[in-house]
Amino acid sequence: MSQSADPKLTRTSFQKGLDDLKDSLIEMSRKAEEAVELAVDGYRSRDPNKCQAVFELERQTNEDERAIDEIAIDLLAMQQPVAVDLRFITACMKINADLERVGDQAVNIAQRALNAITLPVTSLPIDVERMGTTVGGMIRRALDAFVSGDADLADAVLGMDDIVDRLNIDCYSSMVRKMKESPELAEQALDALLVSRNLERIADHATNIAEDVIYWVRGMDVRHGFAAKKLRSMQQP
Amino acid sequence: MSQSADPKLTRTSFQKGLDDLKDSLIEMSRKAEEAVELAVDGYRSRDPNKCQAVFELERQTNEDERAIDEIAIDLLAMQQPVAVDLRFITACMKINADLERVGDQAVNIAQRALNAITLPVTSLPIDVERMGTTVGGMIRRALDAFVSGDADLADAVLGMDDIVDRLNIDCYSSMVRKMKESPELAEQALDALLVSRNLERIADHATNIAEDVIYWVRGMDVRHGFAAKKLRSMQQP
Repeated sequence: MSQSADPKLTRTSFQKGLDDLKDSLIEMSRKAEEAVELAVDGYRSRDPNKCQAVFELERQTNEDERAIDEIAIDLLAMQQPVAVDLRFITACMKINADLERVGDQAVNIAQRALNAITLPVTSLPIDVERMGTTVGGMIRRALDAFVSGDADLADAVLGMDDIVDRLNIDCYSSMVRKMKESPELAEQALDALLVSRNLERIADHATNIAEDVIYWVRGMDVRHGFAAKKLRSMQQP
Repeated sequence: MSQSADPKLTRTSFQKGLDDLKDSLIEMSRKAEEAVELAVDGYRSRDPNKCQAVFELERQTNEDERAIDEIAIDLLAMQQPVAVDLRFITACMKINADLERVGDQAVNIAQRALNAITLPVTSLPIDVERMGTTVGGMIRRALDAFVSGDADLADAVLGMDDIVDRLNIDCYSSMVRKMKESPELAEQALDALLVSRNLERIADHATNIAEDVIYWVRGMDVRHGFAAKKLRSMQQP
């Protein structure tokens, strides 16, 4: 008997598909968060092995992205989803894309780390650890909000983005000053500045995810509701 | 009579929806390309008015992104799309997200331009114009490939990405050298380096669009087929 011959069976199979989609995204978010953590650790501890592990995780999240998209498209094709399911599936596709880009940013950080390792050690006034922890927390909370369908928790992620923005602005100013004062350390300062920028971009992706959760849960698009705030954020270094 | 009562009418209305979706994306891509052009011009000619125009275009593309997503979701809800239409609609949603991010990157360039205007004029060995022209051409070709369903044209965009990657690597090396040799010009060199990086990111978005076109046309996912190439590209500055 084909699935479409029995609506009840089809619905069960559809529900299972939705659960698979959610589980796959949770698994992917863990890898993305781990990649960010490893990249920041690799940079701080000058550990090339951690950087290599980031590249390997990125390959996995690339595979995951493709697989998750396939699940989502199969679900869309399987039966005409009702409004709330449709919004859920499209939100998943967007979250999927953001998580893959988090992986890309982690690779960028790991690459800066590999460059920094080749340069003399120096102490720079940048709190990469704090930024990394905040950003990791944003990804985790955005996904918790997704898992529990909690729009209030997603709102909290939007607030955390401000902290990261401020840290990034501070880092930019400090590093430019360092470049001017100690040109022999220009490359180290540049690496630090770029790592900070990558972390700020990861925070933006976590913010995107939180906005997708809010859209799914409340049926309300806040993506550009905060357009002014977003523009301010983008207008920083 | 409701639309669903007449399959023929529904199909016509569905086809009109697909056409609307395509037209809206083309219009959005024009704005994204214009934003990149204005931002590069604003940087080169130190013109704050052009930078402000980029911010205005970004507000418009944010609105467009939301509207296009709504059209796509309505089409998915309207009737169960067949495989090729489904792939088309999901490709449109992805292209939409990439175009919005092109707008974000143009804003970043405009912001660097506004910073550069406050600093003394200097001549730097970076061909922003050439990079801008190449990147603008990539967006245009990716969208031409989309409009004409031409996967071969989309393939050509993937090749152009290599040119931009090389220009970006050259710019990075030159600007780091400049920072070390002339620390008083560190901030100008940093602005140039960041503009180059933003252009390289825009090229990545054009590449994503080309890959989505290939997936839609050939039903073949090449997004991470070029995983090794992509990783190489990301591992550059």
